[in-house]
Amino acid sequence: MKSAVLAAIGDELLSGARLEKNASFMAKHFHNHGWNVKRIEVISDEESEILSLLSRWVGNTDLLIISGGLGPTHDDKTRYAIAKYLDCELSPNDDMYNMVLERVKDYPERYAYTEKCRNPQAYIPVKCSAVFNPVGFALGMKFQQDGTTVIALPGVPLEYQAMTRQELPEIFAPSHTWASVIILGLPEMTIAEKIPEVINNPSLHISILPASPQVELIIRGSPELVDEAEKLTRSRFDNVLPRGCLSLSEAVIHEARTHGVKIACAESCTGGLVGEQITAIAGSSDVFNGSCVTYSNEAKQNILGVKSETLASFGAVSEECAREMAEGALRIYDADYAVSTTGIAGPDGGSESKPVGTVWFGLASKNGESHSFMKKLPGNRGEVRTRAVRFALCELWKMIYTSKIY
Amino acid sequence: MKSAVLAAIGDELLSGARLEKNASFMAKHFHNHGWNVKRIEVISDEESEILSLLSRWVGNTDLLIISGGLGPTHDDKTRYAIAKYLDCELSPNDDMYNMVLERVKDYPERYAYTEKCRNPQAYIPVKCSAVFNPVGFALGMKFQQDGTTVIALPGVPLEYQAMTRQELPEIFAPSHTWASVIILGLPEMTIAEKIPEVINNPSLHISILPASPQVELIIRGSPELVDEAEKLTRSRFDNVLPRGCLSLSEAVIHEARTHGVKIACAESCTGGLVGEQITAIAGSSDVFNGSCVTYSNEAKQNILGVKSETLASFGAVSEECAREMAEGALRIYDADYAVSTTGIAGPDGGSESKPVGTVWFGLASKNGESHSFMKKLPGNRGEVRTRAVRFALCELWKMIYTSKIY
Repeated sequence: MKSAVLAAIGDELLSGARLEKNASFMAKHFHNHGWNVKRIEVISDEESEILSLLSRWVGNTDLLIISGGLGPTHDDKTRYAIAKYLDCELSPNDDMYNMVLERVKDYPERYAYTEKCRNPQAYIPVKCSAVFNPVGFALGMKFQQDGTTVIALPGVPLEYQAMTRQELPEIFAPSHTWASVIILGLPEMTIAEKIPEVINNPSLHISILPASPQVELIIRGSPELVDEAEKLTRSRFDNVLPRGCLSLSEAVIHEARTHGVKIACAESCTGGLVGEQITAIAGSSDVFNGSCVTYSNEAKQNILGVKSETLASFGAVSEECAREMAEGALRIYDADYAVSTTGIAGPDGGSESKPVGTVWFGLASKNGESHSFMKKLPGNRGEVRTRAVRFALCELWKMIYTSKIY
Repeated sequence: MKSAVLAAIGDELLSGARLEKNASFMAKHFHNHGWNVKRIEVISDEESEILSLLSRWVGNTDLLIISGGLGPTHDDKTRYAIAKYLDCELSPNDDMYNMVLERVKDYPERYAYTEKCRNPQAYIPVKCSAVFNPVGFALGMKFQQDGTTVIALPGVPLEYQAMTRQELPEIFAPSHTWASVIILGLPEMTIAEKIPEVINNPSLHISILPASPQVELIIRGSPELVDEAEKLTRSRFDNVLPRGCLSLSEAVIHEARTHGVKIACAESCTGGLVGEQITAIAGSSDVFNGSCVTYSNEAKQNILGVKSETLASFGAVSEECAREMAEGALRIYDADYAVSTTGIAGPDGGSESKPVGTVWFGLASKNGESHSFMKKLPGNRGEVRTRAVRFALCELWKMIYTSKIY
């Protein structure tokens, strides 16, 4: 089994100003191809830390990918640290940098700026080979030593992703060594107990990832065992997302397309997150007509047609309002199924009868049925919203899947 | 300067199935209090890896926080590894677990499930003290050795955050050792050149974080120097977000509240992300009326009042459609300012004249002015959408800030 170590450099990561996402992106692809990702490390942009990283892993892993520290400013030290580690000079790879510059030849200001950044963005330790940057400007670099290939790339995710795809095409090919099964509405231990022969199979590696109301099982192993375990797992549960759907929103799109129906949403406390998750899936425009975010009561009345008596008697966070919002979305978007959210995400706005975390969900279908239900969701504002989105998508999926509301 | 190392345990992190966020959350608070976060490490849930982590850092840092591996399933090995490291037995802290159970006493099913998970969730190595879990069920644990305090907590972010707040209250107190200045519309090197005395001050630590069209400068140092550098930086630029606003959406809310105006959006390619970012800020309901996500052409016509001739002659991704969408949002939400997005996020749907990444933005204000502009944004679907949201919020902020469209 080949091994990789993924390192990210940058004080903005260690200071929490930025969240490191490149390693996680890359780890998924390595894992799917049976590589062992031994460790993910985030280190500061001190030269000594970069040197220590290189000493720690060169000779101890097949591949070390370093991201970050290749920009044009004073805090970008990766190229100098690598040159020091290899005890060599830096020299510009002008041919490659000119190819990069070519991309902005029609934009005089950006051209001048990029030309000005030639030093240091074109500079490579002479014992390294340069790595072309197909979307950004700073060149990457790589070298081999003691059985380890070291690749240093810019930390900008767009550039990092394009350059890893270019340098490691085999890691991005399809793979059959894993499967994901997403089960709705059961706690993780209950799920584990229903599939003991999968959980206890020493030739499989199972990760159980709860994100209420869903639990994702990731099954890894040989293609045959994974296939068998996936089929067995799927046969033991109702409310399992279809094969190949890696998220609730993918399943919603898939199901709507299968059934040839159009969907819509009305959102209050989720503020657009339900629509955002649906439209994150390419091709969602085939089945998704839209989502109406109504934060003010006036918008709920004027756009969605929520009755003023409903708002006066029960408030915006109520069974009646949630149902009328869903019915309104169904009507204005001319959809077959609609879901709505209205709740108190906090930190303020809660009361004894409607504490922070109270969220009402509405469901409406073109056959005239509608329904609403309530959940008390734990957590801070962000968590209440995130959980509310999952419940909304979960019920929307079930409604389309079963062609009924329940 | 005190030092901390933040470690996360879990194969789901090394396999890229989950993104590690706890370390980043914690790092920010440590950094703001002048602690040195030496490293962030993500390791697998093998016992040997956890033992090696403890050997690596006990004696070499003031604090080591470990997250993850304390759940009830087979892949949760942290408590056993710590017991082995300390060469001691585990025993249940029943008093503390009973307090935890108390929270679900009114829910018989959840109570039974949680009771069933007493072993292992209540079990603590006898040489550790137990850490109460105020929101979840698994207890945490801590011990001191060779000058290092080790705290092991569940990886669920809600639990991790509540338990770190409880154990390290000093780290969460306000701090004046850092400032953030967010500048719009200039490249990072141009910004750096305008404030050489800040960038080159050896007593300050500056991070430059570009996220077009904004660049964030994070200035760290003594309270006096930070205050002085922040003032100087702010004086050198136009289009700087107000002090205390750490994001575009916060600035939009702040400015709308200051000017006593209401805002609204109409979104196509961003699918609800603009509304989502605005409503992520607590209190946004004071100024945000809503956002209308219109994915289908019918919804653009029927709800926002985009003219059918506009769609027929110019298409949905056009100057005219963007402007009419913003005007429509202004009208249906009865807002003072509105912004709209309509574009091609990809991967499909592009053409020679309107390639993937083409996004039109509309702006409308209650005084009757409206305007639209186009950007060609790089990246994949997610990146095009994220960048489009930033441009929309940026222009919305400028429009409210200057009370005009330009």
